[in-house]
Formats: sequence, structure tokens, C-alpha cells
Amino acid sequence: MKIQPSQVDRVLIFDTTLRDGEQSPGAALNGDEKLAIARQLARLGVDIIEAGFPFSSPGDFAAVQRIAEVVGTEDGPTICGLARATRQDIQAAADALKPAVHSRIHLFLATSDIHLEHKLKMTRPEVLAKAEEMVAFAKTFMDDIEFSPEDAGRSDPEFLYAVLERVIAAGATTVNIPDTVGYMTPSEFGGLIRGIKENVPNIDQAIISVHGHNDLGLAVANFLEAVKNGARQLECTINGIGERAGNAALEELVMAMHVRRQYFNPFLGRPAESEAPLTNIDTRQIFRTSRLVSNLTSMLVQPNKAIVGANAFAHESGIHQDGVLKNRLTYEIMDAQSIGLNDNQIVLGKLSGRNAFRSRLKELGFELSDQDLNRAFVRFKDLADKKKEISDRDLEAIVQDETQTQSGVGFALERVQVSCGDHECPTATVTIRTPEGQELTDAAVGTGPVDAVYRAINRLAEVPNQLIEFSVQSVTAGIDAIGEVTIRIQHEGRIYSGHSANTDIIVASAQAYLNALNRLFNALQHPTQNPQTFQEKAAQPTQAVAQL
Amino acid sequence: MKIQPSQVDRVLIFDTTLRDGEQSPGAALNGDEKLAIARQLARLGVDIIEAGFPFSSPGDFAAVQRIAEVVGTEDGPTICGLARATRQDIQAAADALKPAVHSRIHLFLATSDIHLEHKLKMTRPEVLAKAEEMVAFAKTFMDDIEFSPEDAGRSDPEFLYAVLERVIAAGATTVNIPDTVGYMTPSEFGGLIRGIKENVPNIDQAIISVHGHNDLGLAVANFLEAVKNGARQLECTINGIGERAGNAALEELVMAMHVRRQYFNPFLGRPAESEAPLTNIDTRQIFRTSRLVSNLTSMLVQPNKAIVGANAFAHESGIHQDGVLKNRLTYEIMDAQSIGLNDNQIVLGKLSGRNAFRSRLKELGFELSDQDLNRAFVRFKDLADKKKEISDRDLEAIVQDETQTQSGVGFALERVQVSCGDHECPTATVTIRTPEGQELTDAAVGTGPVDAVYRAINRLAEVPNQLIEFSVQSVTAGIDAIGEVTIRIQHEGRIYSGHSANTDIIVASAQAYLNALNRLFNALQHPTQNPQTFQEKAAQPTQAVAQL
Repeated sequence: MKIQPSQVDRVLIFDTTLRDGEQSPGAALNGDEKLAIARQLARLGVDIIEAGFPFSSPGDFAAVQRIAEVVGTEDGPTICGLARATRQDIQAAADALKPAVHSRIHLFLATSDIHLEHKLKMTRPEVLAKAEEMVAFAKTFMDDIEFSPEDAGRSDPEFLYAVLERVIAAGATTVNIPDTVGYMTPSEFGGLIRGIKENVPNIDQAIISVHGHNDLGLAVANFLEAVKNGARQLECTINGIGERAGNAALEELVMAMHVRRQYFNPFLGRPAESEAPLTNIDTRQIFRTSRLVSNLTSMLVQPNKAIVGANAFAHESGIHQDGVLKNRLTYEIMDAQSIGLNDNQIVLGKLSGRNAFRSRLKELGFELSDQDLNRAFVRFKDLADKKKEISDRDLEAIVQDETQTQSGVGFALERVQVSCGDHECPTATVTIRTPEGQELTDAAVGTGPVDAVYRAINRLAEVPNQLIEFSVQSVTAGIDAIGEVTIRIQHEGRIYSGHSANTDIIVASAQAYLNALNRLFNALQHPTQNPQTFQEKAAQPTQAVAQL
Repeated sequence: MKIQPSQVDRVLIFDTTLRDGEQSPGAALNGDEKLAIARQLARLGVDIIEAGFPFSSPGDFAAVQRIAEVVGTEDGPTICGLARATRQDIQAAADALKPAVHSRIHLFLATSDIHLEHKLKMTRPEVLAKAEEMVAFAKTFMDDIEFSPEDAGRSDPEFLYAVLERVIAAGATTVNIPDTVGYMTPSEFGGLIRGIKENVPNIDQAIISVHGHNDLGLAVANFLEAVKNGARQLECTINGIGERAGNAALEELVMAMHVRRQYFNPFLGRPAESEAPLTNIDTRQIFRTSRLVSNLTSMLVQPNKAIVGANAFAHESGIHQDGVLKNRLTYEIMDAQSIGLNDNQIVLGKLSGRNAFRSRLKELGFELSDQDLNRAFVRFKDLADKKKEISDRDLEAIVQDETQTQSGVGFALERVQVSCGDHECPTATVTIRTPEGQELTDAAVGTGPVDAVYRAINRLAEVPNQLIEFSVQSVTAGIDAIGEVTIRIQHEGRIYSGHSANTDIIVASAQAYLNALNRLFNALQHPTQNPQTFQEKAAQPTQAVAQL
């Protein structure tokens, strides 16, 4: 829907999982995965999706364009693209966003003296003029323009106010205040927002937004204090992923405002007892979104993570057994149902047919092509042979696994066979099909079965790399559960991750490794089409992005 | 060291990892593990270790007693035991704490009307009298007494002030204010502390402490606001573990106050530019402590966790490649060295002898008996045959693995042998030695190699249970890295976890499963000696603990 600053009477959720979140080391996503997340973010009800930085690479451009086309519908969220304050960046963003019904360009330009002097080599009057000029230029493409004064926290407040006044006059509809290094405390951040609210004369014509990092564990508290002082847009990510300790976590912000709405209502000019939601988020989609992002980015969620951690709603049973305290809600401030955390439902089994399978996937939000559906159905039947009860999470694991495995060309796993034990030498025999269609088989020994598999694959694929992380999580409870394997490999300073799910964790390890290897392989073949890796960003003149 | 309220000019760190932290579902620790953590907490420099709840079970009593004896030295931390406001609880705590040079009893009693009416069935005057009487009784054993008004947040402030005044008059040297359900925002919590500071006439004779939970992601911010308003003790846990979304994370609190000391100094009556540390914590021990607690409790730390997550100090390389911005610290508010996060040092190899091994372990803080050292050395040589470079983390993994595997009696793994693959039926052959010394061998097929191993073990051990979680993490980078396996199993509503490390993850899985199974087996043999599991706590009259 269209966003009009004067009509905003709630807190807008600006999700940057696909831009800032994806900058987490090794969290790079391919186009299909970005689209899957964008679709789920739309279901979650975020107001704005920051889909990428179109000028930074052809890959990012294509991803933003595809999301704009598929997710940027009349009833869908606003799709946003990032741009530096240059004509070519703005032009690229505008081009990529064209298919979206509601679109936004997010411009940024530094306002601190240290940046002006050392990086931009501009004077304050030049920055003022440039900011105004570029907002006006962006405005020729669309009405919805966001401006971020980079390094706002270290900027002279008077100059910051002047810049904000100027860009709002030039047409910026949102001004975003970043705490780049995660250094501020809630009182300080609230004070910064209050200062802007009180000192920028035309501030009522724009929405005040905030952006921050969690280095000291304070991002969520900072944002909530900003809301109390006038901020009406929060830039956040699912599971709080992002550079270093990440961004503010969407689910914590939304649930804090939801649970404590009587406390926050007056700051939005509502009566304390108002039951109207403070955000547009469908909280029942939170848990599913969290799992999707965790799986596709390979960023695990710790059990004691607020809201979405495995223990967040797990109480020691003892608490509730004191017969006197009857009402569960006396001790629980949230209901597990409110974030869509149901019991692990058994939905399908061995006898379920293709139609039941297809319609359950649709209910879960997966829309597959016939070919993909066929492939997933084969996997499903195979799983149903091994595992009596197939849950929603199992289905998600299968489909997400297919999404990752089938993307792009590369090596395919044909066969893997392992023997190991504490009195044996772990040995793997692997057959892969090369991108040229050749079948190759070799064996290797290793320190363990996974090591042996990797060594055998390395003998065949001959793509040099270093394994830096390996992890396995069970998808559901039960001894026959699917295991989800995540691996990260490194080559020349860049990190590539791979993910796979299988009841056999050795097979999943082999496939996850090939998925990561294929990403590396593709990057080596087409260096410019792989925007989400480290040195790429460094090679492009985009290093400033990370400093928002 | 001895703590005198009037002399406290810094913020005291009260670590409750071993009490509230250990209440996390499945995080139960055995006596050896608790002692290992207590030793590391002493190295970290915490002021007070809450070691357990002595009256709750003989196991907890013994653990507190052992920690009091070994860690509660003249220069060591104060050792604290929890007790309800009853003579038997207080007596048990005093008995368990006797070996400690500096000890504290932590008493709690509810002050909210709902608790008075439904649970305690006491009037306000009765609560006042009881609190006073029990503090006075505790005072007959030691001088250092902490009192917590349970459910303080929902108590009538005037009554809360009256209770605090009375317990301080009776000798309580610390009063602790809990936000039990993690419901408060920073401003509200700060206001609660300010109200106490302003309205309890004798408050200067006690230290104000805070306790809280992270359900809305605000625990750390709440505590820092409490410090600004007069709190001088923070009850926190390593990695923020604890019930549900956990407690406030020690490392975030300490580093926020460290990094922002110029901001916090004035609230402690110091000049802003003072360089004197705000806490007694040796921050360079933070990372090691985090890993130890994560491994022994099997509570993973997510990569984007503030301070101790794998990515917390990992920057996109692009950021620093802009030649103009030379100074790394301009963009980093903390130095990885400050939390003791060194590169993964190569310390030992194949040719290292027993002396080098022993002295490195000592430097890492492990003091092993000759027998344990021998066992660990055999493991080390075995690993050195497989892996060229042995890092500190590998050594920690070996020693922690031995600590867990050797505890208590039970089944021992003699041999495991597996074959699997995507075109095979995963098959495991396992030999175990029963507690009676009998060797048993059997085989099983499964949906994957881990499943096959578990089924084979189940055929031999015949201890019914359900596997609810399985995960593997690599200890270090490199294809030959050690894998750390964590599993959780459930039996009659109780959760038991097992942990093991090996270069072969199938062998580690078998051992981790046996470790968990042995805990379950011991619980079935000696139900009263296993205090940290679910229903046990429910069966004991201790459910109130979880509500602090």
C-alpha cells in the first residue's frame, strides 16, 4: 500500500533482512532464496522490504527487479532499493524497482565532518546542495524517497538538522537516523530523535525512521525509546541478523510493542487501553518467517533467543503445577500461538497423494512450478518411506533444500557411500556429475566420515577452498528426524555457504558441501554476477553501505 | 573478598549461571561441570557466584558445598546459596556454604497481594514479620544476607518499601529487585529502582541488586537503566542463558559499561573521564567462559549474538578497504582482544610431549588428576595422529568431553562401526559395556547413520526415551576439525542432554547419546539425586524459584 507521512498513525516496519541482514558473513542468498524470503515478508505484513542495492552488482539488480515484479503488487509491501547519492545509483535503483506498484529509493550521504573531510572531500554547503539535488533527482522517478544521513551520530546536530530540513523540502518522505556502530544507549538515542523532532522545522512532512546495530545488546531498547520520541519507522531484520552482532530484531520490536501496547499507546497519541495494533505485522507468521530466514541464510537461532528461540516458550513444568496459580497468563506475558508456534503437526504420511502434498505446500506459502513440484514430491515419497510422520517443518526443509540445490549449474551429487567407526579408518566413495556432464567416482579416507566425503569430492571437483564451519540441526524431534546441515567454505577471503536436509546427515553433508562449492564455482566462472560476497563489495565502490 | 555495602563504589557482578541459568530446559549440569564453570567464573572475576539451591535436593547441596570448598577461597568470590524464607532452607544453605571463606544466603519471599493471598496465605503484617524473622535467623550464620521480594513488579510500592526497610533493619546487606516475567521497559525499571532509592529510609545500608528476564529482548537495557538509578549489583548469566529467553547476559552488561564508561561514570559519582573499571571483570576471560558454558550446558550461541557470537567481531572486509579511513577503531567500538578472542592459535602437535600438554592445560585453567591427565593425553595423541594442528579450542573440547564422559557410572561405548550412503541402507554395529561389566554387541538399520547408531544402542541399553534435539558444531575451521555433538533426550517429561567431541561425528554422536542416556539411567536409579530436571523441581516444593 501507499505510504503517506501525514497519515501514518502506527509504527511502520521496514525490513532489511535482504540488504543489511544479508551482509552477515556467509549469509549470502541466491535469487530464488531472496524471492522466497520476500514473499514470506509480504505474508508477515512488513510495510517496506529493502530488497537490495541495485547498482552494486548485476545480481543484486536482478534480485531487486524480480522481487519488485513478484511481490510488489497493489496490495503488497513497498519495495525499496538502496542507492548512494549519485545519479547512476539512483537510476539503477529506479530501473530495478520499475515493476513494483509501490516503490521507494533509499538514498544515503554522510553528514559527519570526518566523512566529509576524508571520504567525500566535500564542504558542508556542498553536502547540503548534493543531498537536495539527489533527492530531487530521485523524486523524478517516484514519490516515495528515503534519505539517510550516514554517520548521523557523530554529526554536528545543527548541520544534521539543516540537512534533514533541506532533503525534506526537496521531497524526502522518510528520514532515517542510523546508529551505525551500535554505540548508543536508549536515553541517548531517544534524545537524538527528540532533538530532530524539535529542531527540524518541516519534520512533520516526513516519517522519522531509525536504523541500528546490536553490538552492545541495546538495539531493540534504542528503537523503542526512539518510538517514544517520535520515530514511526523501524529498520530491522528477521532474527536480528546483519553485520557483526546484527540489526534490531523485527520479532522483538513487534512483540514488545504488542505485549506492552498499553504502555506505548500514549506515545502514539492513542488512549492507553486502545486495542488497535501498533504495527501491521501478522504476528502469527513470525515463527515461520524466522525459520525460513534461519535456514536459507544458515544463521542459527540460539535456544534462549527472545521470541523465536526454541526455549522462549518452554517453561519448566514445575512453574505451573502449583495448583493455586490457575491462570497460565499470570506468568506468561505472551502466548506461543501469537507467534504461530504450533505443536509440530503431523500433516502427511506415506499414503498422502500429490494433491494433498501440493495443497499443503500452498497453505505453507510455497508456490512451485510443475517441475519443482514433481521433484519435491519424489523427495516427499522417499522421506515418507523412512519416516512415519511428516510435519510442516519437514515439508519446509524439503522444499527449501530443493530451492538451494537446484539453483544454478555446477556439480551434481550422484552417489555417496561411507563406512566409519572408532576402530576403522573412515572411508568415503563419491560419484559426482561435472558441469560438462561427465560422471566421476573416487574414494578418500579422512579423520571422520564428513572429512572423508569432503576429501573425495575435492579429488573430483578440484575447486580449492577451506572449510570454516560445519553444523547440523535436527528439524524435528524424534530419532528418525531430518538433519539440516550447514557448511561455510572460504576462498580468497570470500565465504560461501551451503545448506541441505536429509535423514542421513552424511548425505546431507555431501550435498551441502556441493551446494557451497557450486556457489564458489559460479563465482569463479562469473565474478561479476556474484554480488553478495566479501571482496566483491570491496571492489565495488560500495563500502559505505555497511556503515549505515 | 568481603563485600561491604558502604564501600561499594563499582557495579558488583552476581553470576547466576549455575542457579537460574541451569534452569534452562535441558541445560542440567553434573557436579564436575558445575565446579569447572565455578572455577572459570572465579577467573573471570565475578563478585558473587550463586552456586545453587541447597535445600532443593541432595545433589544441589553437594554441588554448592564443593564449590564453596574449592572456589570459595580467601581471594575468591563470595559463594551464594538460594533459600526460601524457611528455617530448613536457610539451615541447608548455611550448611552447604560452610566451607566458603566468603558466603551469602539469598532469601526470597513474595510481596505481591496475589502471591500473599493465593500462595502464601499470609497477610501483609505476617509477611513483614516473617521476612524480618528469617533475615535475622540467616544472620545468625553469616553477615552477608540478600533478600528478594518475589514478584516485586506487581507489589504495592508502599508495601514493597516497608518490607525492604524492615529486612535491611534486620540485617539484609543486599536487596534484589526481580523483573520475573521480563515484562518491563528500561524507563519503568529505572523508575522502580529510583522509587526504592527515594522511599526506603535505610536503603544506604544495603546494595540494590536487579534480576530480570529477556522475554522482550530488554533485560540488558533494563539493568543499565537500573545502574543509572542506583542499582549496584547485577544478577546475570553467561551467554544470557536461563528460563525461557534467558537472563541478562553478563558479557553484554560488562562490555556495555566498559565501552561506554564515560557515559556511566557520572552515575557512579565519578568524573566522566575516569578510566577505573566499572566492574571487577577480567574482560579477556569472557570468550573462554562463554565457550565453556555453551559446551557444558549444550546451549548454543548464535553467530549474531552480541559480544560472544562468531560474527560479533567479523567485519565485511570491504569496510576497511577504503584507504582514507585508516583507523580501525573509528569503526569498531570494541577490540576482539578485549574479550580474549584470539586467533585460533596452533599450540601443540604430534611431537608435543606430556609436559607440554600438561602445562598448556594448566594455562587454560584445567587442573586434572593424574588419571584424568593420562586419559586426556591418550585422546590428545590420538587426535594429533589425525589432525596436524591442535589448537586451544581442540584441547578444551577434549578435556570437556572427558569431564562429561567419565562422570558417574553407566554404559560405556566400546566400539561403533557404520556404513551409509544415498543408495544404501544405513547400518550400525555397536558394542557397549553395561554398568555390570557385560559386553553386548548388536546392529540396526536406520534412516541415517545417527539413527542407526541410536537404534543399535537402544537395542542394547533398553532405556526408553525420545530424542528431541540433535546438533553438531565444528570446533575450529579446517576440513579435519573436531565436531561437537549435542543431543537432548526426553523421558517422562524430563530432558537430559549429552555432549561429545570427536573428529568422527558418528562416533561423537554415539558417545553423546550414551552420555545423555547415562544421565537418564542415573536419574531412574537414584531419583532424588538428580535435582536439575523438570518434574523433580515440580515434585519438590521449589516451584517458586523459577519466578525470581
